[in-house]
Amino acid sequence: MDASPRSRAQRTDARRNYEHIVATARAAFAELGPDAPLDVIARRADVGSATLYRHFPTREELLHATYRPEIEAMARRAVELADYFPPAEALERWLRDYFVPAQEERGVASMVKDALVTAPEVFSQSKEQFSNSVDSLVHAAQTSGDLRKDVTTRDILRMAHGIAVTSQGALHARDRMLRVMFDGLRPT
Amino acid sequence: MDASPRSRAQRTDARRNYEHIVATARAAFAELGPDAPLDVIARRADVGSATLYRHFPTREELLHATYRPEIEAMARRAVELADYFPPAEALERWLRDYFVPAQEERGVASMVKDALVTAPEVFSQSKEQFSNSVDSLVHAAQTSGDLRKDVTTRDILRMAHGIAVTSQGALHARDRMLRVMFDGLRPT
Repeated sequence: MDASPRSRAQRTDARRNYEHIVATARAAFAELGPDAPLDVIARRADVGSATLYRHFPTREELLHATYRPEIEAMARRAVELADYFPPAEALERWLRDYFVPAQEERGVASMVKDALVTAPEVFSQSKEQFSNSVDSLVHAAQTSGDLRKDVTTRDILRMAHGIAVTSQGALHARDRMLRVMFDGLRPT
Repeated sequence: MDASPRSRAQRTDARRNYEHIVATARAAFAELGPDAPLDVIARRADVGSATLYRHFPTREELLHATYRPEIEAMARRAVELADYFPPAEALERWLRDYFVPAQEERGVASMVKDALVTAPEVFSQSKEQFSNSVDSLVHAAQTSGDLRKDVTTRDILRMAHGIAVTSQGALHARDRMLRVMFDGLRPT
């Protein structure tokens, strides 16, 4: 250990600050939506605006830090499911059990939407991991002949995102819409 | 004519005011979204806030006045198409050619979403005309055996709404998603 106790304490403090801001931001985004004012988040986290901006120079960076673990976990689930199930079934399970439910948290839905629509640079690393995992599922299912070939990964994510957003809370409706989508995704 | 020229002039003035506010609101909603501040709309319409509130006591009433003609025209289209095409085809054409494109105007999308999700009282008359027309299409297609029976009108509108909202501007993607949805809506 060549770090002095003092610098270690400082680093621990900085990390606690960071984690506390992220946890506070998550609650605020869930409550107020992804446009929650940053000064409200700073106040609730009991830090100055300067501290908040030092850790997270832009709203996108704060959103990304808040939801990155979830986005990356979703990507890992896609890879795991592909090991256990035939490709089309793995894709359906991933969409129904992980992707759609995650969208019900407003901040996640907004991040995924941004990634789908505008793909800001700050999301690029998580986005690439996420896209690669889902692309693998989609291509495997198309190759095995269980998924129509005239759709893209983005089409599928957009449809599922739309279903998640329009059905918020109505689980039976969500399941019926997903069934329509999955049936429609079979090769004709 | 028992109305004096003066009272007729006053009524004409009031109607012009009303129409001017609605036209201004429509541009503001399209530009700023359905949450556009009412005082901005009043200022742009060059009327006092009191005048705006006298005509439209709530935001919902202003939204409704702005988009009612469009919602009602959509309902009439559904009835017309049912006269010319087999039920399932009439439904597909209505969704693709009228319902989905209309959603690309933010105010319309928001009104339809509100009507689908929370159905505020103020929309109830247009909503009923709208729902009845679409219900007729859906039930006719289910009766003729060309539409699966385990979906509701609201499921179909929600899916189409989701596709419209997530694909904004991307016409090819929108068409691919609609094709998936229509194929999925066939009886299995």
